[in-house]
Parts: sequence; C-alpha cells; structure tokens
Amino acid sequence: MERPLFIPVLLGTARRGRRSEHAARFVFEQAKKRAELETELIDVCQLAMKLDDAGEQMKDPKFSATIQRCDGLIIVTPEYNHGYPGLLKHALDMNLEEYIHKAVGICGVSAGSFGGARAIEALLPVMRELGLVTIFWDVNFGNVQNLFNEQGKLLDQSYVPRLDKFLNELIWMTRVLRYGRENIPEPKAQ
Amino acid sequence: MERPLFIPVLLGTARRGRRSEHAARFVFEQAKKRAELETELIDVCQLAMKLDDAGEQMKDPKFSATIQRCDGLIIVTPEYNHGYPGLLKHALDMNLEEYIHKAVGICGVSAGSFGGARAIEALLPVMRELGLVTIFWDVNFGNVQNLFNEQGKLLDQSYVPRLDKFLNELIWMTRVLRYGRENIPEPKAQ
Amino acid sequence: MERPLFIPVLLGTARRGRRSEHAARFVFEQAKKRAELETELIDVCQLAMKLDDAGEQMKDPKFSATIQRCDGLIIVTPEYNHGYPGLLKHALDMNLEEYIHKAVGICGVSAGSFGGARAIEALLPVMRELGLVTIFWDVNFGNVQNLFNEQGKLLDQSYVPRLDKFLNELIWMTRVLRYGRENIPEPKAQ
Amino acid sequence: MERPLFIPVLLGTARRGRRSEHAARFVFEQAKKRAELETELIDVCQLAMKLDDAGEQMKDPKFSATIQRCDGLIIVTPEYNHGYPGLLKHALDMNLEEYIHKAVGICGVSAGSFGGARAIEALLPVMRELGLVTIFWDVNFGNVQNLFNEQGKLLDQSYVPRLDKFLNELIWMTRVLRYGRENIPEPKAQ
Repeated sequence: MERPLFIPVLLGTARRGRRSEHAARFVFEQAKKRAELETELIDVCQLAMKLDDAGEQMKDPKFSATIQRCDGLIIVTPEYNHGYPGLLKHALDMNLEEYIHKAVGICGVSAGSFGGARAIEALLPVMRELGLVTIFWDVNFGNVQNLFNEQGKLLDQSYVPRLDKFLNELIWMTRVLRYGRENIPEPKAQ
Repeated sequence: MERPLFIPVLLGTARRGRRSEHAARFVFEQAKKRAELETELIDVCQLAMKLDDAGEQMKDPKFSATIQRCDGLIIVTPEYNHGYPGLLKHALDMNLEEYIHKAVGICGVSAGSFGGARAIEALLPVMRELGLVTIFWDVNFGNVQNLFNEQGKLLDQSYVPRLDKFLNELIWMTRVLRYGRENIPEPKAQ
Repeated sequence: MERPLFIPVLLGTARRGRRSEHAARFVFEQAKKRAELETELIDVCQLAMKLDDAGEQMKDPKFSATIQRCDGLIIVTPEYNHGYPGLLKHALDMNLEEYIHKAVGICGVSAGSFGGARAIEALLPVMRELGLVTIFWDVNFGNVQNLFNEQGKLLDQSYVPRLDKFLNELIWMTRVLRYGRENIPEPKAQ
Repeated sequence: MERPLFIPVLLGTARRGRRSEHAARFVFEQAKKRAELETELIDVCQLAMKLDDAGEQMKDPKFSATIQRCDGLIIVTPEYNHGYPGLLKHALDMNLEEYIHKAVGICGVSAGSFGGARAIEALLPVMRELGLVTIFWDVNFGNVQNLFNEQGKLLDQSYVPRLDKFLNELIWMTRVLRYGRENIPEPKAQ
C-alpha cells in the first residue's frame, strides 16, 4: 500500500482576530479525512522568527524539518493590500532546498468577494523560485465573515465540494512529483 | 526504450527584425541534439490567427494538434513594455485543454541586460491557468544584440551550459508529468 | 473655464461575441455625461494592426494621434487565462511616448465573479512602463452575462455609483497630471 | 520659495549582513544633496513591529507620522525569492491612508545581475493599492557586492547619473501630486 502523502497546511497570517484561521482549520479537517494524506496545521505565528533578520540564516529547525519531510503543501493566506502577508513571506524565505519539486495549493481569504485572488497571483513567482509547483485550482474564501460563524463552523456548504476538487488536484500533483523525486534522477543543483 | 519526449519550441514574436529568432533557433538546435527529445520550431507569425477574433473559437487546427501531442513546451519570448508580446498571448489563448499537466520552460530575450526576466514573471499566471507547469530554471538572453551575429551564430558560449541546465530540468519535469498523465488517474475536469 | 479633459475609452478585445462591448459602451455613455470630459470609444478591432509585425514600427497613425492628444485613458478589458487579451497588448505596444505622464483607469470584465481582477494586476507593470499612472480604483464587471441584457442595457444599477467613484478618481488624477505636464518642467527623456 | 519636498528613504530589509544598506545610504546621501528635498533614512529593523500581529492595528506611531507628513517615498529593497522581503511588507501594511496620492520610487538590490527587477514588479500592485504612484524609473543595484566596498563606498560611478535621473523623475511626480493634493479637491474616500 502507498505510504501517506504528507501535506501540511500553513496558515499564513499572524494578525490578531484573523479570520483566515477558520478557513485553515476547515481545510485541515477536510485534509485529515483523506485516507491517503497525513497532515498537520502550521501556524505562522508559532514559528521561531525574528524581526532583525531574514532568510535561511534564521531558519526554524522544526519548520525546516517539516517542509523537508513533506510531499506537498497547502497555504491558506489572506490578501493584504493586493499582496501576501509579510510574515508569510518572512516564514517561507527561511527554507530553500526543502521545497524543491514538491506541489503546493493555495487557498486565498478575503473580506471582499475576490477571496484573495490577487494574493495568489502575487505568490506565483515566489512559489516557482522556491522550486514548488503551484497547482491550477485554488479555493477562494471570499466574504469570509459570512462563511464561518464565531466558532469557526462552516456556513456555506458549497465549500466542501470546492475543496474536494482542490484536494484531488493537489493529491494528483503531489503523487506525481513524489514519484519523480523517488524514481527519476533529478538534475544536479548548481 | 523510452519513446522520445516531444517538446516544441514556440517563438513568441512576429516583429519584423526580431532578434528573438536567433535565440529560438539556437534553442531549437540544442534541443535537437538531445536523443531523448523530439522537437520542432513553431513561429507565432506562421499560425493561422485573426485580428477580429480571439480565443478557442479561432483555434488553428495544426497548432492545436501539435500542442495536444506535445509532452512539454519551450517558449522563447522577448519582453515588450515589461509584458509579453500581444501575439504570443493571442496564440496561446487559442488552446486550452491541450496544455493540461504538461511542462513548460521559458527563455526571455531583451536588448537590455535583464533578458526578459519581467516578461517571464508576467507569463507565470497565464501558464498556470492553462494547466502548464513552469519549471524554475529560465534562460535569459540579455543584450541579445551582442549574443548572436547577423547570421544567428552564437557569440557567447556560456549560453551552451546555461541552456543545458535548463533542458535538464525541463526534461525531468516533462518526463515526470508524462508518467503522471499516463499512469496516475487525473482528476476529472469540471 | 477649464478646457475639457480628453479621456477616450479603449475596448480591449476583438473576440466575436464579446460581452465587454456592453461594459465599454456603458462606461463611454457615463463618461459622456460628465461636463468636464471629452471622450470617444476606441475599438481594438478597428485599429490598423498586423499579424506579422509588432511595436512602434506598425503604429496606427490615427490611434497614435488620439493617444497623443488624450489627457487620460480608460481601458475596458476582459481577462483571458488570468492575463490580458493579446490584441489589447498588441495595440498598446504600438505607441510609446504618447502615454507619458497621463492617467489610466482600468475596468475588468469576466464571466466569473472576480471581474477581471487578475487581468488588471497583469496590466500594472505594462501601464507603468508606458509611463501611464494607473489609478487605484477599478470597476470589476463580474458575472457580466447577468449585468447587461442582449441589447446592452445595464441590469444592475449599483454599477452607476461604482463607475462614478472610478470616474471621480480618474478625473482628479488626469487633471493633476495635466497640470504637471503643462506647468512643471518634465525631466528630459533619456 | 517652495517649501522642501519631504521624501524619506525606506530600507526594506532587516537581514543581518544586508548589502542593501550600502545602497540605501548612497541613495540617502544623494537625496540630501538636492536643495529641494528634505529626507531621512528609515530602517525597517528599527520600526516597532510584532511577530504576532499585522496591519494597521499594530501601527508604529512614529513611522505613521513620518509617512503622513511625507510628500513622496523611496523604497530600497532586495529581492528574496523573486518577491519582496516579508518585513518590508509587514512594515508597509501598518499604514494606509498615510500613503494616498503620494509618489514612490523603488530601488532594487540583488547579488545577481537583475538588480531586484522582479521584486519591483511584485511591489507594483501593493504600491497601487496603498494609493501610491510608482514612477517609471527604477534604479537596479545588480551585483551589489561589486558596487560598494566594505565601508559602503560606491565603486561604480555610473550609479550617480542613474540615481540623478531617478530623482529627477521622482521629484517631478512628487511635486505634481503635492500640487494636486493641495489645490484640487480630492474625491471623498469611501
């Protein structure tokens, strides 16, 4: 039997009162239901980061090990001023080779109706440079204040099949890339 | 023995006097030398396109069939005003499902020193939406007027190993995705 | 009395059956109602363009003269595969110095709910390189098939105040930049 | 006599060993020489920020007051993984209305030869959403390790006229927008 695909969920904001946390927990719970997946929830505000440094030299060893071990990644991110949250980028930049030839799917979150679509576009060059392959399905949690109640319960059930479609594609790409990493010799890094 | 990977080279400009043609021919010639590859050169100004229509409804059947049959794609594109050439986009938009789960590598060309780096960034959301996976190595033909002579002969031999590195990565990703398309059931299109 | 601000509306697609035309006509009609504006509707499929050339060397003299004379510009564009239509870019690239230090506002159109938001993001580097200043209000005509009837009549009146807000900002920026061009010596072009 | 245009220089990285600091100091020193400018150097690692919050609710009052008072802004930023540094974004997101209708110029810094060109592209949607007008000249400090010695002395004098051109354009746009803010009634914020 295939060993599980390890795909953690990264919650990409530390803003107090963040609504993205509800979305991330929903994604995490749905991912857990998939027999073929192993997952965990990584919270950007739990990572060991600094305000006076950046990049690989301030690597968080636990986060690095998780990304090293993962087969794919889900990022749940709000959109701030048409870009990605600073602390999400600060976190992502701590790792480098850990990401190579792995799959990533992005869920955007916003109070407006576009569900973080612009933050996702903004992440594409970053994902690519890290060596990640961004799948071409997203989930856009628009008008997020109406999608979950105070306790984080999902109020709009249409997001269950939307997320299913997203997970199906992510699982496909994750499986394919893992096959590649394990069976087809990778070009040497330069 | 593995059947060849079919990776055509798409020259993305129709501008008269275009220097990108030298770059595209160089890429094409180098690709031909790889035993594992089958390739051909597609010139955007040879495609059947219109000035009063757009999208799949003006599909060029031959171009569509080539993309349908290909395993991967190389785009050689100049940068016009920090974006991609209009006719390259006009051409790409004619196909849709033909691209899904295939690899693409992008070579940028410019008269300045950045070698089309911004045009490549601009193409990333488009590639993704088409279902293509953009590899994370590029070739940047900067100061292109100095890289080739009038007859298109390469003057800077450092581009041979640069292109080799790019082709190695593209071949890896193309092979991996072909394995996936042929062996791992793809999620149903919706 | 101030002479009118000349702000043409550019319809950025030539696709047959294009719904963006309804949006462009609505924008054009609303702009005409403003006493301080002079406007006209430019249709990308009426411009003199070629399929075997690109850039300033295939300049359409009439289009060039209009852009030269304008104080600002409104672009109405659909989103194709998360980017701008090829023919819109093909058209924009024909001019260069004509755009410098003028204002532009962008209206996005799409069949989905994001109203071309990603096409607008994609246009930003192009607008900047052309020398245009993109205002920070957009109009997003999402689910455009529900916004206009077959005859092009607006069905959702909320777009009237949305467009008003957009026009107010565009007029402000256009007026400010015209003052600048006419009264504050511009740095020499290099 | 015109009162000085206040244009601070924001150094956008906190990474230890950052080479962008040399570039920022050079820009700051050159800006100080302009009689029409008042400037100061703002260092992102001196700002009062948090690792467990984000946005306007963690506003640094001093930084906010500086941006409120400024007429324009210069951002000096390295490129990390084809995007902007996380802490630069974290800092920028603390303010909002402070930026509206002001000019910004961006200087990119990188160890490679593109001088942060991709980070600049990535900042464009953010700048726009903040209400800033990004000028269309940049300075690209490529191969920065060769441009300054250990003490931060500029080794390549071609950057003096490059920066002059950039400052000329930034000063023009700053002056024009200040005229606008002070003399032409701005549309009401919504």
